Amino acid sequence: MEKKLLANIESVLRACEIRDGMTLSFHHHLRDGDQVLNMVMQRVTELGIQNLHIAASSIFPVHQPLVDCIRKGVVSRLSAPYIAGPVAQAISQGKLDVQVVMQTHGGRAHAISQGRLPIDIAFVGAPTSDNKGNCNGIQGKSAFGVMGYPRVDVQHAKKVVVITDNLVRYPACPAEITQEQVDFVVKVASIGNPQGIVSGSTRAATDPMALQIAQDAVNVIRASGLLKEGFSFQTGAGGISLASSGLLAGLMQRDGIRGSFASGGITGFLVDMLNDNLFETLLDVQCFDLRAVQSYGQNSRHQGMSAAQYASPGSRGSVVDDLDVVMLGAAEVDLNFNVNVTTGSDGRILGGSGGHADTAAGAKLAIVTTRLNAGGFAKIVDQVNTVTTPGRTVDVVVTDHGIAVNPQRHDLSSQLADFGLPIRDVRTLREIALAASSKQQVLAHDEAKLVAVVENRDGSILDVVRAVSEPLG
Amino acid sequence: MEKKLLANIESVLRACEIRDGMTLSFHHHLRDGDQVLNMVMQRVTELGIQNLHIAASSIFPVHQPLVDCIRKGVVSRLSAPYIAGPVAQAISQGKLDVQVVMQTHGGRAHAISQGRLPIDIAFVGAPTSDNKGNCNGIQGKSAFGVMGYPRVDVQHAKKVVVITDNLVRYPACPAEITQEQVDFVVKVASIGNPQGIVSGSTRAATDPMALQIAQDAVNVIRASGLLKEGFSFQTGAGGISLASSGLLAGLMQRDGIRGSFASGGITGFLVDMLNDNLFETLLDVQCFDLRAVQSYGQNSRHQGMSAAQYASPGSRGSVVDDLDVVMLGAAEVDLNFNVNVTTGSDGRILGGSGGHADTAAGAKLAIVTTRLNAGGFAKIVDQVNTVTTPGRTVDVVVTDHGIAVNPQRHDLSSQLADFGLPIRDVRTLREIALAASSKQQVLAHDEAKLVAVVENRDGSILDVVRAVSEPLG
Repeated sequence: MEKKLLANIESVLRACEIRDGMTLSFHHHLRDGDQVLNMVMQRVTELGIQNLHIAASSIFPVHQPLVDCIRKGVVSRLSAPYIAGPVAQAISQGKLDVQVVMQTHGGRAHAISQGRLPIDIAFVGAPTSDNKGNCNGIQGKSAFGVMGYPRVDVQHAKKVVVITDNLVRYPACPAEITQEQVDFVVKVASIGNPQGIVSGSTRAATDPMALQIAQDAVNVIRASGLLKEGFSFQTGAGGISLASSGLLAGLMQRDGIRGSFASGGITGFLVDMLNDNLFETLLDVQCFDLRAVQSYGQNSRHQGMSAAQYASPGSRGSVVDDLDVVMLGAAEVDLNFNVNVTTGSDGRILGGSGGHADTAAGAKLAIVTTRLNAGGFAKIVDQVNTVTTPGRTVDVVVTDHGIAVNPQRHDLSSQLADFGLPIRDVRTLREIALAASSKQQVLAHDEAKLVAVVENRDGSILDVVRAVSEPLG
Repeated sequence: MEKKLLANIESVLRACEIRDGMTLSFHHHLRDGDQVLNMVMQRVTELGIQNLHIAASSIFPVHQPLVDCIRKGVVSRLSAPYIAGPVAQAISQGKLDVQVVMQTHGGRAHAISQGRLPIDIAFVGAPTSDNKGNCNGIQGKSAFGVMGYPRVDVQHAKKVVVITDNLVRYPACPAEITQEQVDFVVKVASIGNPQGIVSGSTRAATDPMALQIAQDAVNVIRASGLLKEGFSFQTGAGGISLASSGLLAGLMQRDGIRGSFASGGITGFLVDMLNDNLFETLLDVQCFDLRAVQSYGQNSRHQGMSAAQYASPGSRGSVVDDLDVVMLGAAEVDLNFNVNVTTGSDGRILGGSGGHADTAAGAKLAIVTTRLNAGGFAKIVDQVNTVTTPGRTVDVVVTDHGIAVNPQRHDLSSQLADFGLPIRDVRTLREIALAASSKQQVLAHDEAKLVAVVENRDGSILDVVRAVSEPLG
């Protein structure tokens, strides 16, 4: 048995026999606090490696150094379910010649399991590990909680490297990723800053317009008849989502309703609902804040799950299939209920599906909440810049000017109407939004360079993203 | 998404499109209390299926109905790391035309992972499951603890079936095997009797001869220099092993030594040592008694592991590689330190390696304890009936008439001598054993039918087992 614990990243790269053209995978549990991708890419660059494919579970602003790797030819291909910040800008500017592949979280897991996305070296940033690669995310100064995304990568990668800043005596306990899957271990000073896990607002919205949207969204859930014993729920960490969760918690408490599970990226808000027995279980693929990290380490009803268990459409059944309700955001929604969270109204990449399309497809009721206008742009449009989530999987759009129900869901329309909710045709909402807008949606020229393809869960192509020609602001 | 929860085992078998010649896998966490294998085989027989290969992680006396399946041609092939009771007798009598394959626990995991042992349908007996197949072994009337063996099977089987007698609301929490790996779920009245987990003696030996062997074994560990901070240890549930563990616990307590881990099948005895902080962690592949089951459900330092993590030689490093000391039993030991736990002195199959050869190969110090004589037979022989564990991986044999050290381990000989331990040449022990024996080891005729092959961890063939011709007693 050769020694697994190596002195530094360079030794690991040499031991993995890294060479031009390989695919390296990374995960994003430290989100905008991650340093693992950056430190690996720095060593890779120093070694003169070229033409790599970076298969990340998400790219954040902190990964700005990747732009330089692209410029130098170290990286020539990229795939990820979510890309934000300078790397997204560089892609939108056409800096990569090969189209970026933007999957869903479930679709990425599916592609890896099927062998459509073969990984040469998977890098696991681990807040705690032993010298054989047993590791977890709940102990150590960089604790980020669940390790849901790399669990899939390590099962299929040719080589697996654990990078830790907290090397403990064998055996690390608990072990979320276990030694028989790990080739090499390396200790570094820091894998990143867990304060960067929380990105953007994690407070419930307080402005009246957002509160009204949240209230209407919760009323849609009530009207649907799904809010009953055994209720299951997922939402994000945005202001409207958190306000909705608060209202929902109050209702469940008042009516003595105990939900079965909440899933997805987990916030302290959902931890409170677990502790208040409003949900039996949390199924967590990724902790969204440090309260969730703490809860995951302590509460056995707060359970981790892999990206495959969470959302893979190619598995034998994933958690999203059992969701009653998901509440999702949108950059744009169009007349066919297609939702765009990949590009902004200006056509530039600003994020990506993550689990957006996965949960919309799985949930019995997929609610999209959005204001009609933002930054001068209409958010209800004739046609979205980019289809991230197909309209056929979106049931309701809740706005500050009323609620549009997907015409496929006649049943739901009448339920909401009986409940006295302000239902409006999506075309009416489009007109109001357009009238209130001061800027025009930027649609790419048909001849503009293709910079990304958006994959649906099953790997089929949903849409393409083209370069934006204007200088960036 | 089709419905996973089916009405009965027959529906499951039809849904799996069972047909002649398939390989079905089973696990043995309920040991001699298991009813899953029997109930599946009953339905299979009723359906008229023929010529199946049963790939079990162990076969116990409770599986007597398999003998009838063999007689009827329902089962024509068998592979397992351990086979005891009527099925072992039938094999020894030559009732199967195809040789049985007897692996090690690690070797079985390796063969499954490599694709050398392809499984058509894996059956998981689950003390608790939800309707999607999330399941655990710690809740429900049939709780047996860790699910270490089926974890490997379900990763590679074409179809996975969970059979439970405690169907709970989705999602079952915790989930040791998760839904994305499970095709079908079926509820039955009982998967077996957890009282059957405990087989044979689970009390420390009290007779003076056994105590002396235990004392000498512990002295060997002391003399080896391995009993220090971070010590790691594995042993079985036999009387000498438990007596040794008791002595070891006393020493560790007295000297303030804290071990890193104890591994393998876990007993209440090791649970006590964990709770007394004599070990930091238990790495458990299979609970050996109900106190271990309870501890596993409650104590996060009592961790489960898969058969692959435990012992697979084809993985990227398994737990046995980090063992300091393993204490093992023997039916026979020969002049080359080869150990037989597969057949008795009468040549009949009585068990098999389980983790015997895995741990001997991995541990720094592999100690075999045995009396010189039993039932009139000498247990130290010129040549073992069957090589289960190669002598090159066995370091010391501790008997009631002294300690033999493998000549390869000169270093150890001098350490033990310095410690004043009664070292004797293995040939001397052989002579004493022979002199005290009243029966002669039964060696099979060279022309007798080949009934089994014994595989080493890597899948190479260590030895063969031949039919016994005499009538069974």
